[in-house]
Amino acid sequence: MTATVLSGRDLASAIRAETSAEAAALTAAGRPPRLAVVVATADESAAWYVRSIARSAEKAGISCDVVDLGADATAGAIRERLSELSADDTVHGVILQTPLPAGAALEDLASAIAFEKDVDGAGPLSLGRLVAGLPAFAPATAEAVVAILEHHGIALTGLRVAVVGRSLVVGKPVAHLLLDRNATVTVCHSRTVDLPAVTSAADVVVAAVGRAGLITAEYVRRGAVVVDVGTNPTEDGGLVGDVDAASVAERAGALTPVPGGVGPVTTALLLRHTVRAAAR
Amino acid sequence: MTATVLSGRDLASAIRAETSAEAAALTAAGRPPRLAVVVATADESAAWYVRSIARSAEKAGISCDVVDLGADATAGAIRERLSELSADDTVHGVILQTPLPAGAALEDLASAIAFEKDVDGAGPLSLGRLVAGLPAFAPATAEAVVAILEHHGIALTGLRVAVVGRSLVVGKPVAHLLLDRNATVTVCHSRTVDLPAVTSAADVVVAAVGRAGLITAEYVRRGAVVVDVGTNPTEDGGLVGDVDAASVAERAGALTPVPGGVGPVTTALLLRHTVRAAAR
Repeated sequence: MTATVLSGRDLASAIRAETSAEAAALTAAGRPPRLAVVVATADESAAWYVRSIARSAEKAGISCDVVDLGADATAGAIRERLSELSADDTVHGVILQTPLPAGAALEDLASAIAFEKDVDGAGPLSLGRLVAGLPAFAPATAEAVVAILEHHGIALTGLRVAVVGRSLVVGKPVAHLLLDRNATVTVCHSRTVDLPAVTSAADVVVAAVGRAGLITAEYVRRGAVVVDVGTNPTEDGGLVGDVDAASVAERAGALTPVPGGVGPVTTALLLRHTVRAAAR
Repeated sequence: MTATVLSGRDLASAIRAETSAEAAALTAAGRPPRLAVVVATADESAAWYVRSIARSAEKAGISCDVVDLGADATAGAIRERLSELSADDTVHGVILQTPLPAGAALEDLASAIAFEKDVDGAGPLSLGRLVAGLPAFAPATAEAVVAILEHHGIALTGLRVAVVGRSLVVGKPVAHLLLDRNATVTVCHSRTVDLPAVTSAADVVVAAVGRAGLITAEYVRRGAVVVDVGTNPTEDGGLVGDVDAASVAERAGALTPVPGGVGPVTTALLLRHTVRAAAR
């Protein structure tokens, strides 16, 4: 048996088409949507990701300003720039790219992004509203996990889901989104004892740890659904997930690919959030 | 075998003693700590709880204003009063008591409580900061669960904890507090399939559903630790938990009692939060 491939490409392209139409309507109405991405790193994969967001945004009719503050930027300078962008009426979405310079923490700085423009759901108010079930933009990656499962007809109510990783950008928010959809959710992490036993008890495994190939066949129950959130750069310039696809595909019932799974949906959702913010 | 009783009384009295000393120091310094509890219900058990907070506050040297808006209060009137109290420099802690009138939701109204005075961690910003690991007051009941476990020397790192209930005041925040202490946390709820199987796999079960006696022996692994957050009024004016203590005590290794477990610690923590807010 080989697992069904849960591609994100069709879903991403449907979201992009809808978003492009909304962007065109906003532009025609004199309110062209605009996204600002604040960068303070020389990290190559961050640069690659930002270029890909900018390219997708322009294609969808959303202007995208990459605001590069340099890898030496202080937390104060980053915060100030985020506040300026938040106060700028022509900017509708603001993202702070990671990694950040030493001494600057995303969860702290992101509170300088106005809640209404926090299109990647990074600030504490967005996160708290998400947990409370109030309107807010969810972190795009976390939302992409749920969107890809729903797109492929996987009904989450009553399923046991193991989320591996407890980051603020994926693990914690995805746990809440899954809980809101009535899944029984277990959050695992580096201090979990006997991780394979925990993940093997789950109907769905969400791998979001950032360690290439961590999840092998022994972590997965036969027939389970596996969502691979990892995007680990390889030495030859490629990208691999947190899941060892070769072994897991023989055991899982379905598996999202890397690339072409959660990634494209994430970018499409960021753009959707930006036009929604512009339409407010 | 009968389970060890994990009383909350000693811990509560230690917290109250420390809090009384801090309150006396603040009062001597011309900053007498003051708590306001906004009530908009005729519910008897809410009234009982509010009286008990007020009594404990006065004993600890904290003035406590019970602001009764009546069971017919509108969401707008409640919000306005919370904003006034938030703007009042002589008030350091503000609590909105539940239940609320139809059309008024705690998670929505609590955002009118200034974050610095949100001593029961009810607002979305407090919740988001808690999830993000930033300084914030946790909901007192959720914090009490963790405090009582730590007080009795139960090291949470690596333990599997099943939280039964996903409310904003207990289930969700306690899951984060436990995760921060490196437990592997599963959140279960009314849509969980085969709840006894899920809870029986856990080292610690936290029952926070509000249904008297729901957790019986078959939900608990032999030797597990059980924390009973329930406070369900009985017909004869007593209080019972979510745990069927008679059957569970024969199987669990340790169990918090109701009353005398999580309850007194919760009240003590609310008062501690109030003096901390006054000391800022």
